[in-house]
Amino acid sequence: MSFKVIKTEDRARRGEFTCAHGTVQTPVFMNVGTQAAIKGGLSAHDLKNIGCQVELSNTYHLHLRPGDEIVRKMGGLHKFMNWDGPILTDSGGFQVFSLAKLRKITEEGVSFASHIDGRRIFMGPEESMTIQANLGSDIAMAFDECVENPSPYEYVKQSVQRTERWLERCIVHLDKLRREEGAVNPNQMLFGINQGGTFKDLRVENMKRIAKLDLPGYAIGGLAVGEPAEVMYEIIEAVGPFAPADKPRYLMGVGTPTNIIEGVARGVDFFDCVMPARNARHAKLNTWGGTINLKNACYETDPRPIDPLCDCPVCRSYSRAYIRHLFKADEILALRLSVMHNLYFYNSLMVKIRAALDEGTFADFRAKYSGMLDSRVKE
Amino acid sequence: MSFKVIKTEDRARRGEFTCAHGTVQTPVFMNVGTQAAIKGGLSAHDLKNIGCQVELSNTYHLHLRPGDEIVRKMGGLHKFMNWDGPILTDSGGFQVFSLAKLRKITEEGVSFASHIDGRRIFMGPEESMTIQANLGSDIAMAFDECVENPSPYEYVKQSVQRTERWLERCIVHLDKLRREEGAVNPNQMLFGINQGGTFKDLRVENMKRIAKLDLPGYAIGGLAVGEPAEVMYEIIEAVGPFAPADKPRYLMGVGTPTNIIEGVARGVDFFDCVMPARNARHAKLNTWGGTINLKNACYETDPRPIDPLCDCPVCRSYSRAYIRHLFKADEILALRLSVMHNLYFYNSLMVKIRAALDEGTFADFRAKYSGMLDSRVKE
Repeated sequence: MSFKVIKTEDRARRGEFTCAHGTVQTPVFMNVGTQAAIKGGLSAHDLKNIGCQVELSNTYHLHLRPGDEIVRKMGGLHKFMNWDGPILTDSGGFQVFSLAKLRKITEEGVSFASHIDGRRIFMGPEESMTIQANLGSDIAMAFDECVENPSPYEYVKQSVQRTERWLERCIVHLDKLRREEGAVNPNQMLFGINQGGTFKDLRVENMKRIAKLDLPGYAIGGLAVGEPAEVMYEIIEAVGPFAPADKPRYLMGVGTPTNIIEGVARGVDFFDCVMPARNARHAKLNTWGGTINLKNACYETDPRPIDPLCDCPVCRSYSRAYIRHLFKADEILALRLSVMHNLYFYNSLMVKIRAALDEGTFADFRAKYSGMLDSRVKE
Repeated sequence: MSFKVIKTEDRARRGEFTCAHGTVQTPVFMNVGTQAAIKGGLSAHDLKNIGCQVELSNTYHLHLRPGDEIVRKMGGLHKFMNWDGPILTDSGGFQVFSLAKLRKITEEGVSFASHIDGRRIFMGPEESMTIQANLGSDIAMAFDECVENPSPYEYVKQSVQRTERWLERCIVHLDKLRREEGAVNPNQMLFGINQGGTFKDLRVENMKRIAKLDLPGYAIGGLAVGEPAEVMYEIIEAVGPFAPADKPRYLMGVGTPTNIIEGVARGVDFFDCVMPARNARHAKLNTWGGTINLKNACYETDPRPIDPLCDCPVCRSYSRAYIRHLFKADEILALRLSVMHNLYFYNSLMVKIRAALDEGTFADFRAKYSGMLDSRVKE
């Protein structure tokens, strides 16, 4: 279990992260399989074919369905979904605060109603760690409160302090679970999460304090929730100097290709986002010249692949005209092919970022692609 | 372009059928891709992996969306959907009589309202041939009227005679289209369709007359529309002796594994049916011990594959517990994996049927599996 920064270019880092299920080349974009399946009908086998390094599943969702005890019985998440690569599970915190209803927060944790059947559930640091231990992910995330944006300074300050106390309870509880006989993944790691809303002083103070806990990784959470990208970049820059240099940094839930390039430029190593799969399901596809909307009539007889510069399994086989037809005809193959393409695009964006860092040309890469990749192709 | 009966066992036939896009081992089950895509998100690439020999697409659907002129512009259906194997297109007749509204039948053809947008459309033998020529399938089907079951004898009699006149117009028109410069598939063949409802005398007379036209293949249409299986078997038996022995016989829209085994026993060479994919989407899965319903609670922690005797890509990788979870969590991967399994099951059923015919053990095979494969496993 280790993280090694191989090379840097300004603040950007090229690294290697090793966990129980393999070594991850960083910067990395993790592919989201919320309910142990990737939206659009992609299987773990498909993930291999689109260059996925790390699969990310959601603690909240898997606790509700099928239930983490069932996943544990089935030998853990790796075996359950037949993915033998690294898995990160989030803590459930974000979903508790974005999906669940009728929340009540106390020092102990959060009581809330399931968004599926209204069932009353309690989740605190110990519960989150127990669920994640049952899932047996390689990286477990600390249970945190994701405050609304904007929130009052005083509220955020107290929330951050509570999340810090929760982090200490997470460490103690996961450490205990990991050592138990029959632990699904005795090498499960815990990443801490930096919070503090958009208040830089709270962010920095929080990062300083959690850095001392010497965790195997640190995330920046609670961003990309509606604030301008510039605010997000400023916060990453503000906390960066106080995050341990020898530990990976994970910017949670981010983002567009440009956000990722800018995140890398500010020293981020891990990313994840539902955006590429969600956009794909709405026919909004990434290309190396910007985004296109495949439902546009101009693609009705376009024989080209989604992106002529892409060598993904979809672009090697199918035309824009065909995939547009599938969307128009409500065939779910449209979703599958589009999600495959967009995830491949994100994974290959990271391949190119790493290659640029290896060659010391990341500044040029950034100048060429930042901004442009998010722009809409003239159709 | 040829059909060769390699071996027979009683009335069952083991054959080889060659068309522009390859040689088909018969008896064969064709896999249905109505709108140039297989339900459940399967691509042409997936069809290769589940042992599909012939893909079947629907003239009516592709005429409506994306439009056969567009498919023609894209180089035909093979290129459009990236499937280089044999393709059969139906004539649109069945859909016009089962899906479309406000039908008006005349000697010329049928006027009807699209089930998608109510648009008024006319389709007669010439229109059907033009559409199928634009699609460029290897086998085009004659445009026929599928009468309701039951229908009055006199109506069916007149309908059959009209369908015969339509068949002659199909032959003339497809012959003309095939010779045109720029024809998508100059080697496109036409199969005639036997009709006559459940009236054996009408069926036999019709088969005798269309047999004289020396077409490259003959279908039995208008069955499996609600009549008891025994009635269907009797009709196959009645018309069989009057179908040319040296031409393939295609029982349209049939059926369960038992229906297929019984069809083969009565000399049928080609089958197709939406049932395996539709059942799969409702978690009703075929196994070599009978059918199971994967939503059943008994599979919640079942680590076995859908069918321990199956070597399909799904059974090699995923458990019943996992796929059940995907169904419960509304993940479309559930549909994809289930459809892949059921289509593979049907394709491998045909492999086993052919092997039994090759070895002269089809009678034993039939005794063992007919009936049993349709039964529900005790859960």
